[in-house]
Amino acid sequence: MQTIKIQEKFDKLRSNKLFEFLVIGVIIFSALVIGAKTYNISRGLLQVVHLLDWFITFFFLTEITIRFLGEKNKIDFFKQGWNIFDTLIVTVSLIPIQDSELAVIGRLIRIFRVLRMVSIIPEMRLLLNSLFVALPQLGYIVGLMFIIFYIYAAIGSTFFAAINPELWGDISISLLTLFRVMTFEDWTDVMYETMKVHPLSWLYYLSFIFFTAFAFLNMVIGVVVNVLNEESDKINRKEQQDAQQISMEDLDKKIEELKVLILQRSTSSTKKES
Amino acid sequence: MQTIKIQEKFDKLRSNKLFEFLVIGVIIFSALVIGAKTYNISRGLLQVVHLLDWFITFFFLTEITIRFLGEKNKIDFFKQGWNIFDTLIVTVSLIPIQDSELAVIGRLIRIFRVLRMVSIIPEMRLLLNSLFVALPQLGYIVGLMFIIFYIYAAIGSTFFAAINPELWGDISISLLTLFRVMTFEDWTDVMYETMKVHPLSWLYYLSFIFFTAFAFLNMVIGVVVNVLNEESDKINRKEQQDAQQISMEDLDKKIEELKVLILQRSTSSTKKES
Amino acid sequence: MQTIKIQEKFDKLRSNKLFEFLVIGVIIFSALVIGAKTYNISRGLLQVVHLLDWFITFFFLTEITIRFLGEKNKIDFFKQGWNIFDTLIVTVSLIPIQDSELAVIGRLIRIFRVLRMVSIIPEMRLLLNSLFVALPQLGYIVGLMFIIFYIYAAIGSTFFAAINPELWGDISISLLTLFRVMTFEDWTDVMYETMKVHPLSWLYYLSFIFFTAFAFLNMVIGVVVNVLNEESDKINRKEQQDAQQISMEDLDKKIEELKVLILQRSTSSTKKES
Amino acid sequence: MQTIKIQEKFDKLRSNKLFEFLVIGVIIFSALVIGAKTYNISRGLLQVVHLLDWFITFFFLTEITIRFLGEKNKIDFFKQGWNIFDTLIVTVSLIPIQDSELAVIGRLIRIFRVLRMVSIIPEMRLLLNSLFVALPQLGYIVGLMFIIFYIYAAIGSTFFAAINPELWGDISISLLTLFRVMTFEDWTDVMYETMKVHPLSWLYYLSFIFFTAFAFLNMVIGVVVNVLNEESDKINRKEQQDAQQISMEDLDKKIEELKVLILQRSTSSTKKES
Repeated sequence: MQTIKIQEKFDKLRSNKLFEFLVIGVIIFSALVIGAKTYNISRGLLQVVHLLDWFITFFFLTEITIRFLGEKNKIDFFKQGWNIFDTLIVTVSLIPIQDSELAVIGRLIRIFRVLRMVSIIPEMRLLLNSLFVALPQLGYIVGLMFIIFYIYAAIGSTFFAAINPELWGDISISLLTLFRVMTFEDWTDVMYETMKVHPLSWLYYLSFIFFTAFAFLNMVIGVVVNVLNEESDKINRKEQQDAQQISMEDLDKKIEELKVLILQRSTSSTKKES
Repeated sequence: MQTIKIQEKFDKLRSNKLFEFLVIGVIIFSALVIGAKTYNISRGLLQVVHLLDWFITFFFLTEITIRFLGEKNKIDFFKQGWNIFDTLIVTVSLIPIQDSELAVIGRLIRIFRVLRMVSIIPEMRLLLNSLFVALPQLGYIVGLMFIIFYIYAAIGSTFFAAINPELWGDISISLLTLFRVMTFEDWTDVMYETMKVHPLSWLYYLSFIFFTAFAFLNMVIGVVVNVLNEESDKINRKEQQDAQQISMEDLDKKIEELKVLILQRSTSSTKKES
Repeated sequence: MQTIKIQEKFDKLRSNKLFEFLVIGVIIFSALVIGAKTYNISRGLLQVVHLLDWFITFFFLTEITIRFLGEKNKIDFFKQGWNIFDTLIVTVSLIPIQDSELAVIGRLIRIFRVLRMVSIIPEMRLLLNSLFVALPQLGYIVGLMFIIFYIYAAIGSTFFAAINPELWGDISISLLTLFRVMTFEDWTDVMYETMKVHPLSWLYYLSFIFFTAFAFLNMVIGVVVNVLNEESDKINRKEQQDAQQISMEDLDKKIEELKVLILQRSTSSTKKES
Repeated sequence: MQTIKIQEKFDKLRSNKLFEFLVIGVIIFSALVIGAKTYNISRGLLQVVHLLDWFITFFFLTEITIRFLGEKNKIDFFKQGWNIFDTLIVTVSLIPIQDSELAVIGRLIRIFRVLRMVSIIPEMRLLLNSLFVALPQLGYIVGLMFIIFYIYAAIGSTFFAAINPELWGDISISLLTLFRVMTFEDWTDVMYETMKVHPLSWLYYLSFIFFTAFAFLNMVIGVVVNVLNEESDKINRKEQQDAQQISMEDLDKKIEELKVLILQRSTSSTKKES
């Protein structure tokens, strides 16, 4: 009971726009500080930012602890992706950083603190949610891409390995080279080199570009169609909720009632007249 | 009263197609003259264009003055973005240019005069309006992009700074290098260089390309969905205005009236008969 | 009268699928022959193709003459874009080519003969029609692009001309360089060069890329929305034609008639009873 | 009768998710084994994978044999594209590979075995189906592209052949160079080279980029519109099936019946009264 009340207070504070802007500001500023160590920032300002940074981490820690305590079944808590994400971010943020030792790990930990921004801005969470929703749908396209890439990489490493082992030495290197060709990055240099030995190898590159472009087009269309469907579904649901819309079925029933009424009246008056 | 009448006359002149074409023609021609100083243009023609150019600036100045005087609350005038834009353009256009001194600033002022074209063509204003409408919506995507870029730039400057300080020296330079990678501009050269030291660094580049491509895809879809929604809203509103459409609700009411009528008739005739 | 009959016969022959495929085949083959002069093709086959090629030109000439004679007002004939296009293609095809003199013009004339394919395939004409329909709509975006390009080219030629005159010498060369930057073609080389003198010039390039990308996005969306609207209009019109659809208005009228009937009956029976 | 029963059993096994995952796993693993010969994999594991691989090929062989026997008209079997595809894949998979001789062909056969993945995953088949459905529609755009490419290649090889025979030597090489220009791959190097001789040749490149971009835009829009139409058709059909929807026509009929009823009653009561 107690925890739920405190949780409500935290939720209120969290959805407070001013608090949100303060948190985002501190996160961005403390992120920029890491990147701009060389610039001269007054020590006083730096210490204020560090204090605010620790305060935000402490706020996140308290909030997630209360959320965890509020959950009846402790295992359910870790079934929600965002809870795991938040816990991870807070835990990593809590690791104390000494600049003297393990400087690299210290920097990386500080960097990951930027992800607290995703935690605090609901629109960011929505964006990431849409990524995870789209992932399984994209899976089969990625599978098709893998097959196209694999077949071409295998052919490439078979025929072109002798020409340039750095680009076509084995299948894994060929895969990287093909990704490069797909991004059109100096792909003609790669092609002209193999065309000197195999004059028809332009067929290999052009067909590869065609197939990957097609698969990519498919992907974009799939995602667009999916999003549009979801949008129209939302609109439909909203329309139905907004105005308890009178449907054709309702009108049909009413007309049916009219018919019964007229018939009844008709019989009753006939009866009476008779 | 007087100002409103004059304002109407100016609006009429402004929306006159012939006047619009003349203004656009003069603006483009005087813009081209700056760029083509070296070509030989007869001094007479040049002076005519300069005169017309000054006339247009004077026209804009008069028009915006009248619009300003016509506004009751002078502060409201500067609350509309387009008024500020127009005032700025006119003010900058009025700065006298002497070719002998401050030649650079003189040229830049002349260049900004091209923006008067946006002022005069209503379709251009619409295009820029759509930019400003889309901006807040794009804000969160830009935020997500910033997080992705920042994390990768921090990782990059940590691990690759020693390999090539010109590309990965500090976080701000790394951000620029990552933008270059996103545009696929010689990104393999950047990658091959770091792969010599860290053979698995291709994972860094490929995951970065995947994440930014996804964020970009999200952005495009968001804008497309938004535009389509607005379009369908417009169509709906227009349909409702065009033909005072008879809705299901109207039909429902009429059928209800019929029912009442039949029932009344029924009771009245029953009464009479009794 | 006579010409209309012959015109019908020509239309029939033209829309014959077999004839269409034959014409397309001959056009493509005679096009390939020009490009592949060095390959050995038997003289006999070549002469057959040349004869067929001349026959097609003659067929087009006859057809367009009949279409011209069939037109009552000869000036109206040249008001339709496709008539001008067809006449031009046929006229150019008729120019006799001697390989000895004016070889370059001879080749170019032969090349333009490929456009007869557009004349014979109706779907190609539709595609080109959609280009001309989209052109005016794209006009304002091109205008906006021109303003963006012009302002950036003027700034670029002012500040960077001393650094690399080959890229930023005057406004027209700067426009070409900016187009190169827009296509991401070695744009970092251009940027790094100017950044050595003006370290903040990356702002110039990044803002330019952002603005052009936005204008381009606007263009694509505009075209997509336009096409979708046209499609839904087509569907609506077809639906209305298909099934003389009963509208809400029709139902409303019928219910109104019912009301009148009930009221009439009501009064008539009341009258009679009284 | 017997074959149909066995066929059902095979279909059941095939649509079993666990079996599907096992097959996909074995295919991917045996594909990776070819690419990773140099890595040390224990001989035991390798033999297990080879056995599983042969089992899958045998499963496919058995399944397709039964499907073939189940077909009444043996010629109809080869009229379905997927049957031919499956038969080809199985036949190629059955060719015995000896590493010592014909190593190249052996590798290519092993590679093509990856396509069995398309055979087993229904969503992959759907994706490939959409490719074949879109192909004829894309045909005319490819035709338009061919005309644009051909005309530009012919012009290019006429004027630029003397400048750089490696890029513009004949029409076929010019076509490849133009494809390179279309992908923006070092296209400015190609342009600057010809601009030294023909200063206005930038018009050639820019107009070419504009035309191909337009044709490509057309293609994307065409495919998107097509997909959206199909989607809305599907939704419409589903809606009609879901709720045997009451149409305007139904309501109209009912109101008509009411009218007849009222009129009948009216006349009957008038008759009686008279």
